[in-house]
Amino acid sequence: MSGLQIVYGVHAVRVMLERHPARVLTVRLAERRADPRVRAIEALAREHHRPVQRVDLRLLNQSLGDVVHQGVAADITPLAPWSEEQLLEAIVGVSSPLLLALDGVQDPHNLGACLRTADACGVLAVIVPRDRAAQLTPTVRKVAAGAAETTPVAVVTNLARTLKLLKDAGLWVVGADAAADKKAAELDLKGPLVLVLGAEGSGLRQLTRRHCDFLARLPQLGAIESLNVSVAAGMLLYEALRQRGSA
Amino acid sequence: MSGLQIVYGVHAVRVMLERHPARVLTVRLAERRADPRVRAIEALAREHHRPVQRVDLRLLNQSLGDVVHQGVAADITPLAPWSEEQLLEAIVGVSSPLLLALDGVQDPHNLGACLRTADACGVLAVIVPRDRAAQLTPTVRKVAAGAAETTPVAVVTNLARTLKLLKDAGLWVVGADAAADKKAAELDLKGPLVLVLGAEGSGLRQLTRRHCDFLARLPQLGAIESLNVSVAAGMLLYEALRQRGSA
Repeated sequence: MSGLQIVYGVHAVRVMLERHPARVLTVRLAERRADPRVRAIEALAREHHRPVQRVDLRLLNQSLGDVVHQGVAADITPLAPWSEEQLLEAIVGVSSPLLLALDGVQDPHNLGACLRTADACGVLAVIVPRDRAAQLTPTVRKVAAGAAETTPVAVVTNLARTLKLLKDAGLWVVGADAAADKKAAELDLKGPLVLVLGAEGSGLRQLTRRHCDFLARLPQLGAIESLNVSVAAGMLLYEALRQRGSA
Repeated sequence: MSGLQIVYGVHAVRVMLERHPARVLTVRLAERRADPRVRAIEALAREHHRPVQRVDLRLLNQSLGDVVHQGVAADITPLAPWSEEQLLEAIVGVSSPLLLALDGVQDPHNLGACLRTADACGVLAVIVPRDRAAQLTPTVRKVAAGAAETTPVAVVTNLARTLKLLKDAGLWVVGADAAADKKAAELDLKGPLVLVLGAEGSGLRQLTRRHCDFLARLPQLGAIESLNVSVAAGMLLYEALRQRGSA
């Protein structure tokens, strides 16, 4: 968690300046970019007293690699993982919080992809267990393409206990399960909610399943038995947002 | 397209034997596996006169690598890409065909992930342009985890022309677009349908967009500007299946 992280792209850098200005260390802009969207970023940085550097486009390409950076990047203080306490504090006063819990997702690419999907769906935080699960490594942050800097990852010792605490706090726990009786669209996903996804192949662990209020089935019409976990998360989050009128 | 491909897992091998028995060259089963699901595969193979080998579990692990194979694999003749003609023939007589077109997706991992999602959603075929787009390489087949062996990829010279031909054949063309007026759920996705997704970052090309009957917006609530294309495909396909009552 030491060092800095880089976010890039007009939208991501603007969002960082708007939501977390104190975490922005330096804004870097390609030398000749001067359209309104880039000027808006410059103004925002000045407003928050963040330094802006004009840099050679080739240097930007070199430091960022093969990504769509649009000539805009920012060095930022990385978002530290949340504790269980921070997670429970964060949901207080939020009207219908939407959380995503990942039960034993071990592939860093899958965790990164889930973070990106969670970010697009306005998820308050992604919950992962401390053991036998992918953690917030540099690879995960890279795959998440900036989402790890705005969508917090809560790392918990005992996922079943955390789900219990969230239930006590008024959230419904809904797990994705290939063998569930109900389709996702048949459940009410409008209230305070934790969506739980298991690892590919094995699915939810027995203990996690027992803590779910409801189980939801996702499309499985093909030859392959399980959806990629980030795609399954995307479908379930999409359904929750659709019901809330914001998909 | 020479050589053979391997599919693995109880479900995938059973589906291959059920739907494409002639393409199954050999079924390989781990030595001690004898539960009802594996016995059903043995019976199915015998019925279609396909050879079954009992092999050492370690050999299976060695040849397949780090995947969830469940002690079951099959060597198969790979599914060849479809031509535009084959695509147009395949939709004849299908009541509400569901197709997925990818406009310039260049990353083989993204194409593989889209194939897997398309398979889970019962998509009839995935359409990709021949130029400036990922093709059906070994990497793509591997990422697709078997989906490339049951969900055909139609490779076309001119995507805009193919979309035009599909419209002439009675299909609606719906493109995913971040700036669309309507949410996916506000469109009627129950009829004969081609869903079109653009490359990450750049989205649909202008010419492709012009061939769309409707544009659909997907969730974009976060700091990151675009969803991974396989997740976006998953959300849009989910919505189509939900409307059809099969999600």
